[in-house]
Amino acid sequence: MRIGALEAGGTKMVCGVGNEFGQIECLEKFPTRTPETTMPQMISFFKEHKIEALGIGCFGPIDLHKESTTYGCITSSPKEAWRNYNILKEFSKELACPIGLDTDVNAACLGEMEYGAAKNCKNVIYITIGTGVGMGICAEGTLLHGVMHPEAGHMFVKRLPSDSFEGTCPFHKDCLEGLVSGGAIGARYGKKAYEIPVQDVAWTYTAHYIAEAIANLILTLEPERIILGGGVMEQEQLLFLIQKEVISLLHGYLGIKQLHKIEDYIVRPGCKGDQGVLGALLLGRNELSK
Amino acid sequence: MRIGALEAGGTKMVCGVGNEFGQIECLEKFPTRTPETTMPQMISFFKEHKIEALGIGCFGPIDLHKESTTYGCITSSPKEAWRNYNILKEFSKELACPIGLDTDVNAACLGEMEYGAAKNCKNVIYITIGTGVGMGICAEGTLLHGVMHPEAGHMFVKRLPSDSFEGTCPFHKDCLEGLVSGGAIGARYGKKAYEIPVQDVAWTYTAHYIAEAIANLILTLEPERIILGGGVMEQEQLLFLIQKEVISLLHGYLGIKQLHKIEDYIVRPGCKGDQGVLGALLLGRNELSK
Repeated sequence: MRIGALEAGGTKMVCGVGNEFGQIECLEKFPTRTPETTMPQMISFFKEHKIEALGIGCFGPIDLHKESTTYGCITSSPKEAWRNYNILKEFSKELACPIGLDTDVNAACLGEMEYGAAKNCKNVIYITIGTGVGMGICAEGTLLHGVMHPEAGHMFVKRLPSDSFEGTCPFHKDCLEGLVSGGAIGARYGKKAYEIPVQDVAWTYTAHYIAEAIANLILTLEPERIILGGGVMEQEQLLFLIQKEVISLLHGYLGIKQLHKIEDYIVRPGCKGDQGVLGALLLGRNELSK
Repeated sequence: MRIGALEAGGTKMVCGVGNEFGQIECLEKFPTRTPETTMPQMISFFKEHKIEALGIGCFGPIDLHKESTTYGCITSSPKEAWRNYNILKEFSKELACPIGLDTDVNAACLGEMEYGAAKNCKNVIYITIGTGVGMGICAEGTLLHGVMHPEAGHMFVKRLPSDSFEGTCPFHKDCLEGLVSGGAIGARYGKKAYEIPVQDVAWTYTAHYIAEAIANLILTLEPERIILGGGVMEQEQLLFLIQKEVISLLHGYLGIKQLHKIEDYIVRPGCKGDQGVLGALLLGRNELSK
């Protein structure tokens, strides 16, 4: 099979072509400008490679409900040029092939489940902490959508009494994204994440709030694995601090064996940055085999 | 079909016999004493009624993983006499029929999906707020277990700055259960929930924390319906306060239509107290039809 994969992000569009075994034969990146500029570039790329199916992992929010009249639309995105743009429909017009669509984070979650850090798992949470905070969730083997799709980056977390930072989320101020995204860290400390020393208390705060959210997700979804990606997580010290804090917060309550080997439970992505495009490839493959 | 249903609770065991259409022909309740006393009573009841299958919705934590050596065990329950008791195995020894098992709250969730307030929904959260706080979750049509089963009653919530109550959860102090369970309300106000006046500020606090948890669950699971049961919810004024607070907390962020008709989204159980035993009946039916 010859399958196209698109990891559609707010900054860049990663286009790939590969096969049903997750072998990617070529990748090309286009900056995310307006649909008028960027769509023709991607369409040419996929046409050139004569793909039999396309999988798209897309930034959101997007409408994923097949029975909806706006199925395939990017809805209330902060990327204005793409707001209410039906990315699925526009690709369908040009490419005569089945197209699978999900969120970028659900695609990354799927990629990790097939090729990365969550092989043989049915309950997985993929969290990306970067410009924003996004989550992809697989529950009992099915990528979770519900009435929309998870927006758990905006979860509320219990604040540390010593912390008076008001948060940067335009909707909720100090929700998780408003406290730990790259932008929130920048606003709070007046510098980029990578400029803050490894032992700075900033990382204790950041780890604490991420751990609060993870503890709540464990109590709710009881996942087999939690994968943390995104730019902020590139600060190496953070993962260990989060792991330690999750254990401390749950306080022996959950008798699940996974917590005894936390370094195998809360982990980095195994696909080394390719989880999004590999997941999109799987979305295309799954659509083709329907 | 003649199906047995057991809603196994910490205070009472509700045993029923019914058919595959959810018609219950008889119900009997036994106080939950020790397994030595209570099990023979239930076994006699079910033998007498010549059931073809049994469904059990059980208090927990319980081991729900069929491949586990302790499948069917009540594990670390605070009910000491039942701790490490394999309720499934003991029933299996005496009743030669298929037995389906899930948590009491997952069973109630299932009952509501078939006969109550969540018909035709695939993504549902059932929350009981009483002596403790328990949650049953159905995600994309499957009752969620994950590595154990949801224990989301112990979610952490963002504290109101004006509130210094330390919480009553022996594990986490001020997790949701430690703030809003019947016991927590009693410890905080020195009286039972039903003794507190309807317009007391106590209800504003209680509603706020329940709404925080619900907002997080909506952001994570994107359910089609949320059902609130349990003794504390019998305070009529509480539901409206919770509905209003969920809207206020999400602050227009989620463009889901359900939030525009919140009175149809966050609702009371439709089975009027029978959701647990009806769900157990369905667990038995499903096991028989496997």
